[in-house]
Amino acid sequence: MISEESVEARIEQRRRARPRLKDERVTMAHGAGGKASRALVEGLIVPAFDNAVLDRLGDAAVLPRPSGPIAMTTDSFVVRPIRFPGGSIGSLAVHGTVNDLAVSGARPQALSVGLILEEGLETSVLRDEIEAMAAAADAAGVMLACGDTKVVERGKADQMYVNTTGIGVVDDRARLDPASVQVGDRVIVSGPIGDHGITILIARGDLDLQGDVVSDTADLWPMVDVLLDACGPELRCMRDATRGGVATVLNEIALAAEIGIVLDEAAVPVRPVVYGACELLGLDPLYVANEGRLVAFVAPGAAERALAAIMSTPSGIEAAIVGEVTADPPGRVLGRTSFGGHRMIDMLVGDPLPRIC
Amino acid sequence: MISEESVEARIEQRRRARPRLKDERVTMAHGAGGKASRALVEGLIVPAFDNAVLDRLGDAAVLPRPSGPIAMTTDSFVVRPIRFPGGSIGSLAVHGTVNDLAVSGARPQALSVGLILEEGLETSVLRDEIEAMAAAADAAGVMLACGDTKVVERGKADQMYVNTTGIGVVDDRARLDPASVQVGDRVIVSGPIGDHGITILIARGDLDLQGDVVSDTADLWPMVDVLLDACGPELRCMRDATRGGVATVLNEIALAAEIGIVLDEAAVPVRPVVYGACELLGLDPLYVANEGRLVAFVAPGAAERALAAIMSTPSGIEAAIVGEVTADPPGRVLGRTSFGGHRMIDMLVGDPLPRIC
Repeated sequence: MISEESVEARIEQRRRARPRLKDERVTMAHGAGGKASRALVEGLIVPAFDNAVLDRLGDAAVLPRPSGPIAMTTDSFVVRPIRFPGGSIGSLAVHGTVNDLAVSGARPQALSVGLILEEGLETSVLRDEIEAMAAAADAAGVMLACGDTKVVERGKADQMYVNTTGIGVVDDRARLDPASVQVGDRVIVSGPIGDHGITILIARGDLDLQGDVVSDTADLWPMVDVLLDACGPELRCMRDATRGGVATVLNEIALAAEIGIVLDEAAVPVRPVVYGACELLGLDPLYVANEGRLVAFVAPGAAERALAAIMSTPSGIEAAIVGEVTADPPGRVLGRTSFGGHRMIDMLVGDPLPRIC
Repeated sequence: MISEESVEARIEQRRRARPRLKDERVTMAHGAGGKASRALVEGLIVPAFDNAVLDRLGDAAVLPRPSGPIAMTTDSFVVRPIRFPGGSIGSLAVHGTVNDLAVSGARPQALSVGLILEEGLETSVLRDEIEAMAAAADAAGVMLACGDTKVVERGKADQMYVNTTGIGVVDDRARLDPASVQVGDRVIVSGPIGDHGITILIARGDLDLQGDVVSDTADLWPMVDVLLDACGPELRCMRDATRGGVATVLNEIALAAEIGIVLDEAAVPVRPVVYGACELLGLDPLYVANEGRLVAFVAPGAAERALAAIMSTPSGIEAAIVGEVTADPPGRVLGRTSFGGHRMIDMLVGDPLPRIC
């Protein structure tokens, strides 16, 4: 065996000998595993992600033994367009997976990145997304530990698709389970809903819509961290309200916990521009996707504490308590309208907003 | 908090209430996160993968604390056609990622599955692949712990793309590092090369080619397991020779270890049908992809032991010692031809066989 210093020296030597990516567009050869792949991976991706684990370029990344049980989650991103106000597919791919770990009560540790690129994609576009991923991962304190790149023929993808899979360490403070939700628990939404979905719709430009709204895409771990501190086991469960929106998340929890939920619709924060766009398009903001909003279920005695904790974080200042868990009707969500009536709020049916994430 | 029994009872109740997937084709709604997504996930995927971790349907799977450092790897699969003699995209997606862990000296534990489906895909085709994944994972003793499904419009994918990301526990016996390869080490190939690539080419049917060859797609962990037992630290490093073939793997190791490799070309096992197809198409079998073959570097004194260990496993009976590590030329691979001459064997350039995996 050779010494760790010698390994480091060789890695350093190899770092200096990195091939450069000179092509202006992605070709099939970039996905073939040979010289062009090496230029793409070692000339573009590895330097941007810049960490010792990835530098070794083994078939797998090796990470130290975690300090507790681990959480694992995966998400593919096919959003169109890939750049939009407030973010892009690169930052979204990092936040989306980090958030699935966070709402499961796990501190995000490492992500894998699987790229499926369309032949002909400008390498400058790819570079921007790689840099967006690196920046988002850096800000979230999570390592981009391993990756893979495939190229498919022109027309067999739409610029690029990204899969991120994340692992995190389950936090000692977390006792989260949808099945632990109880009658009387309060429901909190961490900020205005629908910003991401409406931003994407406007960015597509095929609707005659304008509006000053940006995606809510954000890392939710800092919010989860303060929530766990504030509530401990009184925090019953959380979900991030992505595809299907807040309505679908509420239905999932109602089904899993076999409880009812009454939602005070007037209390749900919605920006006027989002509300207006939804009116125009016949959409309900409750079904529009978010990428940096969570729904939390907390014991009644902890609700105000939880709200204060959420509001102490930058993306949580407009959070609100929006509902309550009831015994009836089990598995169902009722909306209490501003006129005092009730309506059944079902899961999303169909897909009014395809490829939002 | 509620008891574990009560959680189990609710999971069982929910299992009985699973929605059924009745659609004959995949629609955009199956990727939208609402009711149709639930029917796809709970009606098709969860029952096929059938394990307690997935049954909970949280945002992340929770796995016990691993017994050592963990290895993580990711791979996307875009093979065309998705079914071929000897396997399909489903089994390939399991083997590919399991093998990246195995050759890193890590016992595979859990996989995530990220599906990108083309609108209009027959659900029977999807069902077959889900079942192929479940069967391959079951045979490999690895859990399909979490998943994600996205749908893109017709023409924006090619039936289906699959990402699998795997985690494994680094085996105590493994001391693997390309940088530990030393002059005099022997190079072993675990079986005939090129079977997978040529099988895919023939299966595409757009060449006037026939031949009795099946993909070598297989789980390599059993082979790695016996190799680690036989060699311990005398096993320097391994790679599975997928995209770019054996030639590219040898070049990667030569570069990483700053050593030369002399390959005895006549010793490399190649089936006559693969050799014939390569002749016809102007391909070199050394560059053709494999999905169940590994290249191992072992200390000279352990070479015969390593070969015997590999040959004791079902997919290793045609293994061979094919080369030796030299001081010169560093970073290069030389082929010793059957006529006694030498040729430089470079990395793969270009992509003669796109979408082979």
